[in-house]
Amino acid sequence: MSGHPRITSDAHDASKPASPRRRLLGGLALSALAAPNLKAATLLKPLSVDPWTQSPGAPILEHPYGLPSPRESNVIRRAARAWPMPGAASSLTPLADLHGSITPNGLVYERHHAGVPDIDPDAHRLVIHGLVREPKLFTMDDLLRLPSESRIHFLECSGNTASEWKGPSGLPVQITHGLLSCCEWTGVRLSTLLEAVGGRTVTRDGATPQWLLAEGADAAAMTRSLPLERILERALVVYAQNGERLRPENGYPLRLLVPGFEGNTNVKWLRRLKVVDAPLQTREETSKYTGILPDGRARQFVFEMDAKSVITRPSAGQRLTAQGFYPIVGLAWSGRGAIRKVEVSTDSGATWQTAVLDEPARDRALTRFQAGFVWNGAPTAILSRATDSTGYVQPTREALVAARGLNSNYHYNGIQQWRIEADGSVKNA
Amino acid sequence: MSGHPRITSDAHDASKPASPRRRLLGGLALSALAAPNLKAATLLKPLSVDPWTQSPGAPILEHPYGLPSPRESNVIRRAARAWPMPGAASSLTPLADLHGSITPNGLVYERHHAGVPDIDPDAHRLVIHGLVREPKLFTMDDLLRLPSESRIHFLECSGNTASEWKGPSGLPVQITHGLLSCCEWTGVRLSTLLEAVGGRTVTRDGATPQWLLAEGADAAAMTRSLPLERILERALVVYAQNGERLRPENGYPLRLLVPGFEGNTNVKWLRRLKVVDAPLQTREETSKYTGILPDGRARQFVFEMDAKSVITRPSAGQRLTAQGFYPIVGLAWSGRGAIRKVEVSTDSGATWQTAVLDEPARDRALTRFQAGFVWNGAPTAILSRATDSTGYVQPTREALVAARGLNSNYHYNGIQQWRIEADGSVKNA
Repeated sequence: MSGHPRITSDAHDASKPASPRRRLLGGLALSALAAPNLKAATLLKPLSVDPWTQSPGAPILEHPYGLPSPRESNVIRRAARAWPMPGAASSLTPLADLHGSITPNGLVYERHHAGVPDIDPDAHRLVIHGLVREPKLFTMDDLLRLPSESRIHFLECSGNTASEWKGPSGLPVQITHGLLSCCEWTGVRLSTLLEAVGGRTVTRDGATPQWLLAEGADAAAMTRSLPLERILERALVVYAQNGERLRPENGYPLRLLVPGFEGNTNVKWLRRLKVVDAPLQTREETSKYTGILPDGRARQFVFEMDAKSVITRPSAGQRLTAQGFYPIVGLAWSGRGAIRKVEVSTDSGATWQTAVLDEPARDRALTRFQAGFVWNGAPTAILSRATDSTGYVQPTREALVAARGLNSNYHYNGIQQWRIEADGSVKNA
Repeated sequence: MSGHPRITSDAHDASKPASPRRRLLGGLALSALAAPNLKAATLLKPLSVDPWTQSPGAPILEHPYGLPSPRESNVIRRAARAWPMPGAASSLTPLADLHGSITPNGLVYERHHAGVPDIDPDAHRLVIHGLVREPKLFTMDDLLRLPSESRIHFLECSGNTASEWKGPSGLPVQITHGLLSCCEWTGVRLSTLLEAVGGRTVTRDGATPQWLLAEGADAAAMTRSLPLERILERALVVYAQNGERLRPENGYPLRLLVPGFEGNTNVKWLRRLKVVDAPLQTREETSKYTGILPDGRARQFVFEMDAKSVITRPSAGQRLTAQGFYPIVGLAWSGRGAIRKVEVSTDSGATWQTAVLDEPARDRALTRFQAGFVWNGAPTAILSRATDSTGYVQPTREALVAARGLNSNYHYNGIQQWRIEADGSVKNA
């Protein structure tokens, strides 16, 4: 049942049979572990007894709600720049310092249009109206009395990695890719809620209405139009993330969760869902979230985040301290399904090896990958390339620019390259 | 790929074919949603615009490491009692207020023997020695240069639910079952580490050594003997939980993770692993963690936590505010594999329905279950009963006591019953 990541050294062939032991570490890792360049020291003398073993530690319940070690105080969300209006800003997840596929709630990225409202959950209501049989107002208690489900899904801002459209920005992965997080979300299926209001009625033409307007209770009244059929079976109205109630900056007490769709459509502080027969051209449909193509046309209602991957360790700003074996670790995801394959190159794209994925590769969730790399001290570049369950392959920056031009701020998913210099420093160049 | 919890009303039969729509809600839920006793109000007038929508919210980055809403300040770890030595104490996870299968790091239960040490990760070392070819000292950097994996597993203190051995304690689920948490853990496989020290040598008798001593760097030097073959392929030495570095109270910077084994064997602040030919009778093997049977013999080295489940909502201390439909939500887990089935009774054990499990039911992880319940206002009792992938069925308290007697503090896994009174109050009685 559980995942068994393995480092393989077989370029292009993950299907080749191998013993579990061989598959576990592969040639690269075994040789690396035996090599003197693994710093682990041979034990020559008795183990010292450190000061923290010599006297009792801190008592329990100093922190009934726990916090990270003060020694990890650099692992925080950061803004990419100073925002002129701090209520309309974003902060990014420190991907280089994280180690799994779950993002802890304190480090989930933020993007706000009018700050973080302080909502009283007892006073908050969700209304579902429009082309439905029996429009209703739901309290939070009403929602908690409906069947629910928990699922692990990523969220990615459509503007994530926009820094790289015109070429390597020099920035570290927190700033280039950190508008990206992954949590276990718990809430009520959109389809359950539509049943609770008696189902959809019909449009003036007698058809089943196909759109949904979602509105937030923040001061921006953030509002998007969504294609109902495409999201009906997987969208949730959620009240919890990673087990506990939503954090204020992530939509407390209620948000929409549309797995795979660009972050802003997962409307936070959700107060209203209206079933409509056509998209409503709200401010957000045109002031933002469209992409201008080279011929001047705009791509509108581009919802799914396409397959993408990035190496988080080693990544820009880190340094290889010695020659020898390094695991290359990263994240891959797709808004259209599960990750099927990640390939890694450690020679600037000349050859590629198939990375090992943490199992299971979940639907529309961050999937951790690993590959082995023996650094011989020469400058090189490392890259990763994701393929999703639809067969779509993450494009190069050049291919992306050829298709979309350079006027777009959104949906950048090009292959990311990190350069390793002779001194071991890793750069986004 | 993703889970699709459903409420079923079919007693004893989850295998009966049903349309996805019918399986989604089932008869119970559909009738409940249509019934007037769902509080959701019909929308009769325009939606009010709440104060938090009328002015901008808090700016970003007030909290570069985020915290829960102050409105959730009651969702905290709690101790079951005042501990005479606060360094040797425990605190419990607020299961009734949580909603998924992941426990957020700030609420993971604690059990300490000598307080929480403040360990400098740069100075911390892990030594692997004993019957191995090349004993070695590992720095944290060494460990980060080895292949790793991330897996979701529960941790349960062997003393969890000891309050119920002699009958219903009256306590709420946080206190009865809260020495229980579930995280995504990231680290290095024990088998990889043994390879890194050249593998095991042989005992004096020429056999492969079968035991492992694990020692913590806290002032208790918490130490346990573990059966190596049984844990070799699944144990991890972990440095991260839910994506970020371990919390101080959960073993920062390094702990052993033995999926399915009683919590204390997952040695925190891990400093030493010694391969040995027989268990070493450390203080913890006898001063604690054995169970006295009715005939006076002691059960020693009982590692696996047997299959267990508990309803978290509704649970003792909560109240049903009206008649009508309620989802019964709970958690199930087994130290011997995955959860195969959970049955729920809403009539004091007379009849049982098969609950819906959140998919996938992961190996040795908390698995969330749900069942439907229409409360008609009469007093009753609700119970849950788990079956794991080995076929083992969670026993009644009576069966457990018949087998083990009443002298044991550990490994209580009896069926938990909550009584619902005519006034809607829920009691552990």
